[in-house]
Amino acid sequence: MKCTILSVGTELLFGSILNTNTAYLSQQMVQIGIDVMYHMTVGDNPQRLKEMIQHAYKDCDLIIATGGLGPTQDDLTKETIADVFGERVVPFPDQLAILQAHFKKYNRVMSDNNLKQANFPEHASILPNPNGTAPGFMLEKEEKLIISMPGPPNEMIPMFEQHVRPLLEQRSDGVLYYKTLRVMELGESMLETQVMDLIEAQTDPTLATYASNYESTLRIASKRKTRAEAEQAVEQMVALVRERIGPYIYSEEDESISSIVFRYLNEHRLTLSSAESCTGGSFAKAVTDRPGASAVFDRSIVTYSNRAKVEELGVSEETLSAHGAVSAEVAEEMARGIYEVSGSDIGISITGIAGPDGGSEEKPVGLVYIGLCIRGRVQSFRYQLRNSNRQSIRGNAVVHMFRVLYRELVIDK
Amino acid sequence: MKCTILSVGTELLFGSILNTNTAYLSQQMVQIGIDVMYHMTVGDNPQRLKEMIQHAYKDCDLIIATGGLGPTQDDLTKETIADVFGERVVPFPDQLAILQAHFKKYNRVMSDNNLKQANFPEHASILPNPNGTAPGFMLEKEEKLIISMPGPPNEMIPMFEQHVRPLLEQRSDGVLYYKTLRVMELGESMLETQVMDLIEAQTDPTLATYASNYESTLRIASKRKTRAEAEQAVEQMVALVRERIGPYIYSEEDESISSIVFRYLNEHRLTLSSAESCTGGSFAKAVTDRPGASAVFDRSIVTYSNRAKVEELGVSEETLSAHGAVSAEVAEEMARGIYEVSGSDIGISITGIAGPDGGSEEKPVGLVYIGLCIRGRVQSFRYQLRNSNRQSIRGNAVVHMFRVLYRELVIDK
Repeated sequence: MKCTILSVGTELLFGSILNTNTAYLSQQMVQIGIDVMYHMTVGDNPQRLKEMIQHAYKDCDLIIATGGLGPTQDDLTKETIADVFGERVVPFPDQLAILQAHFKKYNRVMSDNNLKQANFPEHASILPNPNGTAPGFMLEKEEKLIISMPGPPNEMIPMFEQHVRPLLEQRSDGVLYYKTLRVMELGESMLETQVMDLIEAQTDPTLATYASNYESTLRIASKRKTRAEAEQAVEQMVALVRERIGPYIYSEEDESISSIVFRYLNEHRLTLSSAESCTGGSFAKAVTDRPGASAVFDRSIVTYSNRAKVEELGVSEETLSAHGAVSAEVAEEMARGIYEVSGSDIGISITGIAGPDGGSEEKPVGLVYIGLCIRGRVQSFRYQLRNSNRQSIRGNAVVHMFRVLYRELVIDK
Repeated sequence: MKCTILSVGTELLFGSILNTNTAYLSQQMVQIGIDVMYHMTVGDNPQRLKEMIQHAYKDCDLIIATGGLGPTQDDLTKETIADVFGERVVPFPDQLAILQAHFKKYNRVMSDNNLKQANFPEHASILPNPNGTAPGFMLEKEEKLIISMPGPPNEMIPMFEQHVRPLLEQRSDGVLYYKTLRVMELGESMLETQVMDLIEAQTDPTLATYASNYESTLRIASKRKTRAEAEQAVEQMVALVRERIGPYIYSEEDESISSIVFRYLNEHRLTLSSAESCTGGSFAKAVTDRPGASAVFDRSIVTYSNRAKVEELGVSEETLSAHGAVSAEVAEEMARGIYEVSGSDIGISITGIAGPDGGSEEKPVGLVYIGLCIRGRVQSFRYQLRNSNRQSIRGNAVVHMFRVLYRELVIDK
């Protein structure tokens, strides 16, 4: 199957939104085993949208479209697709009922525009949208398939995962099996060097390295007649890779390091609290992004000022003036402080220089100290992060906090 | 002038690289006043690339292409462009000399593939590349212009800024001026209803509504002969829009509400601390994402457990058991608590149900209470957020905290 990823929306053409949907969907197609021929983006213009769809169908039998399903005048994707497929756009009573119930539930007044969201090409199959008011749909005619989903990623991604991927997996010619290895403390280019000969020799299984969220991953995929064949081919390659970089692999199941730590804390009924300076609450946010965090996470104290470090965590004025706020000593006192204040089993702390200002030759931007107090035993760890801006230094610092927990708790039992 | 942004590279179709060039170039085109009709991405396939170029020239007189200029076998952009324009590809002696000097300087051996990088369509004008070995070029024939640049952003962006933008600014037929209005407490579809007649009647200035980061924006743009004319047209339309939705507009300069609040605190030398429950540090993170936050932000206490609320903020056990953790009373005690503990001028708090679990009929998922203590005076605000998942409830809750600060501080002076 050959596919075009089609994005609809004038705001994309203005460059005011980064098109992350296209990258996400392309990765998914690779995994399913569908070839992506084109990415195309058009504004909310029916004529140009129509021409793009027709052009895509010259080479492709599948179009995955996102955007233009909203309630406003310029959302014309449905009408244009119906036009290309020679369909009428008609109200779908079930969808109208769902939409009315939604507006009633939240006591919101339904505008005439909103009614449009219950209209679809007459032979469309609906793709439910639990995260928004615009359902998606699929439509097929003469071996041409189109799947049309809303543009916001928090609506599109769940819709794709629940309804679209299973359908495409069924239709893909062959069975794709893959494993994603998560790799710690080995940059993407070092990782690639280690397995370069395998990458260069690849036909099936394929190997690809990615960098995401300050970590490296290695994806090994095989597409065969049966799942058993594909699985065997992948596992053989995983064994080869394990020989090369075994100690760096922390998950063969594509599980994030924060998830592994969280699961460990839950299973061992351990509680955690944190004291943050340079990350300014990012660690607490990352922990509590996860539903059920309250079972393991008690509190975080974001001590952005020195005064707050003293008052909230009992860091001593002497330590602060002798070593500075960004020091192993302060990180350790912060960790002990949050451990004692919270009564949690584990206290973790961080202090560092996120930049862009505040660095010096001795303590450059990117320097962080992580303190850890497990049942009264205190340690600290120093890292010089090489990320290029404040946001990525803070993000990478949070990943390093999870790595410290992983190494000192999960591995070092 | 009408333009297509064309990206060449199979790696983009795999989704392993996010296409940031396209967003960058689109923003640049908006600024210069060139209309972007399409974004297109093709792999390293001459036939499909050729068809894409031909399709683009149906509607456009300008193509800005990136990628496919490298030394490897599959870099075929130059050959394909030459083919479309009916040109031969020939060695450019000056470029060959530059290339040879480069390899000599770094003591690198030049492969036959590298020689390719000195070949160009015979009537091409070279765009120098001080940051890499692949120069770009432009080629024009029969009122069709193509500009071809290398793919890596650190090579493409300087090339664009130094050589391409000045050229395009000269050729742009008119000057674009626009304003982006930020709108509070008015959803995208309600916003559009308010200005529907203006949107429907639009030719120039144009109006478009967007939703981003839980807020709505309205962009008003005009392209005229002179900047003064465009500015006047936009300002007239802004005045009309102001009549309709004036009280909802909080910025006419595309400034975010957090930035306005931050600026206000800085200008008035006020300090802020926060106490967070359901947002779990997200508010503190949002404040400290900004460099220089330490001037206004003292601390945040993330009291995820009830015990932490009592111990850190002095919330009373009685209030917790009488009203529950998610209540106006607890929000107010949290706000007073963080105000007193921190000694900041302003204490803000939040408690709520981020879900997916933990909701009830009386207190459904999405219910949040925001407490505010300004110099000892305590208030609270109740919101039923309608976002559909934990992440967006938390994100929207943070925006509501900034809105409370905006209304109670910036407006209500």
